[in-house]
Amino acid sequence: MALPESVTIVDVGPRDGLQNEPNRVPVDTKVALIDSLAEAGLPVIEAGAFVSPKWVPQMADTDAVLARIKRPPGVRFPVLVPNDRGMAAAEAAEGVHEIAVFGAASETFSKRNINCSVAESLERFRPVVARAREHGWRVRGYVSCVLGCPYEGAIPPEAVAGVASDLYAMGCDEISLGDTIGVGTPLAARRMIEAVSAHVPVERLAAHFHDTYGQALANLLAVLDLGVAIVDTSVAGLGGCPYAKGASGNVATEDVVYMLDGMGVRTGVSLAKVAEAGRVISAHLGREPTSRVARALQGAAA
Amino acid sequence: MALPESVTIVDVGPRDGLQNEPNRVPVDTKVALIDSLAEAGLPVIEAGAFVSPKWVPQMADTDAVLARIKRPPGVRFPVLVPNDRGMAAAEAAEGVHEIAVFGAASETFSKRNINCSVAESLERFRPVVARAREHGWRVRGYVSCVLGCPYEGAIPPEAVAGVASDLYAMGCDEISLGDTIGVGTPLAARRMIEAVSAHVPVERLAAHFHDTYGQALANLLAVLDLGVAIVDTSVAGLGGCPYAKGASGNVATEDVVYMLDGMGVRTGVSLAKVAEAGRVISAHLGREPTSRVARALQGAAA
Repeated sequence: MALPESVTIVDVGPRDGLQNEPNRVPVDTKVALIDSLAEAGLPVIEAGAFVSPKWVPQMADTDAVLARIKRPPGVRFPVLVPNDRGMAAAEAAEGVHEIAVFGAASETFSKRNINCSVAESLERFRPVVARAREHGWRVRGYVSCVLGCPYEGAIPPEAVAGVASDLYAMGCDEISLGDTIGVGTPLAARRMIEAVSAHVPVERLAAHFHDTYGQALANLLAVLDLGVAIVDTSVAGLGGCPYAKGASGNVATEDVVYMLDGMGVRTGVSLAKVAEAGRVISAHLGREPTSRVARALQGAAA
Repeated sequence: MALPESVTIVDVGPRDGLQNEPNRVPVDTKVALIDSLAEAGLPVIEAGAFVSPKWVPQMADTDAVLARIKRPPGVRFPVLVPNDRGMAAAEAAEGVHEIAVFGAASETFSKRNINCSVAESLERFRPVVARAREHGWRVRGYVSCVLGCPYEGAIPPEAVAGVASDLYAMGCDEISLGDTIGVGTPLAARRMIEAVSAHVPVERLAAHFHDTYGQALANLLAVLDLGVAIVDTSVAGLGGCPYAKGASGNVATEDVVYMLDGMGVRTGVSLAKVAEAGRVISAHLGREPTSRVARALQGAAA
């Protein structure tokens, strides 16, 4: 196996993880979570979203969160910005240096999720990405449903490659490939990465895999072996997709760090500290972490 | 990746899965479970154990179970037999054609688990294996703690290879390599298999991985790529090791079948049927399956 020497972990817990929580998480709690993740060594932490508070009320306080988090040198705090209005809010907020836009590899998912076609969504992102680049900001481009869609089923790797290369050509620095409903298996994940990396350099690709069917670590292993070295995770396994039925399950940061530590792949993340951050936010939300590593560590300590 | 075309799945749920259950599972329930697994296409089902009822009361009715299960052609039903007394019980029972003996790669685990050294345990198994072979029975040799020990920590691959090759030389047809506490990660799993397969043909090796830290599928993927084509699983993720603290979590049959189905690796197992078998036994035990696939399928059907 040809694994990368180091992997950049992007913790999406404070945004992708919390956005679907039914009860409002206070700003203090979000700031404490983000600060604890930075303290644990996470190099990239998705800090919030400038989206409609009508659709995603949990993210309505992103500006307040951004104003209060600590900003250790070298740590990046991207925020989700889907359109011009979100971009204006990001520009007005404190300390935004990186944004993320959100496309889909599935037409039906795009229509149901953001109420426009894939092509229309890309046109909507184009001026947002252009403005971000004028500011010298970094841009992540998400592609959802890369290994399957709740409405369309299997998605051809070429469809993923098409959207990914459009986002890359538009100026995205990094393309995050999301198995939104967690249905993928390792060979499908490899085929998808092979198709995309024919158009976008593999070092610009992030694997954003969900653990709904327990496949996320196996899928990650399969694509690390192809040179993917950026991995999106969520502390304690928080969150999922609010629009896709049964789509709980961002892969837990703890589980990924444990696997990478065990293989000698550097992440800079302290497993003990990130597990503690996960325990704190899980306790706040009144539930157990879905991370198996977190549960095993709790069991071993009991 | 070089995956096998087909994999033989050994469902250890009715023995390894149930042995640690605090409440006695009735014979009827065990028979129904085993019959449903055979109906689901499992080619090998560990049906029980002839061990001391003082230590493992849940297995005290193995003879009654063996007398009542259906025996579809070609399906194997090994039973655990740790010593001469167990062997006598196996000989007196109905329809035993395959047994399993249980060694460890860790001296401390062996002493605490079966109260003798690794070498003493092997001498105890020797006449048992010899008698089984006189009967024309098949023999599985388990090795526990192959990727870590709750008392000793890391276990050198050479120690695993030593015990495995002793069991193979003694007459075991197949060596099942157990990550009893589920601490292994993919490269360690590969190194262990590489060390063992220098002494025992890889087609005689079974991977018996626990999912305590969520690593089992990734570890399996890593060793399937080396030619391992026998995988021990437990329906619904039942069970673990009664002697090792925190060692819950046989990898779930459903999760393994889902991954192999997705990669086009044949198992002969119906995912829908094995998931239904898992739902029935989990309902009997009054809990949710730990299988993520089982939970996702339930969510998708809800």
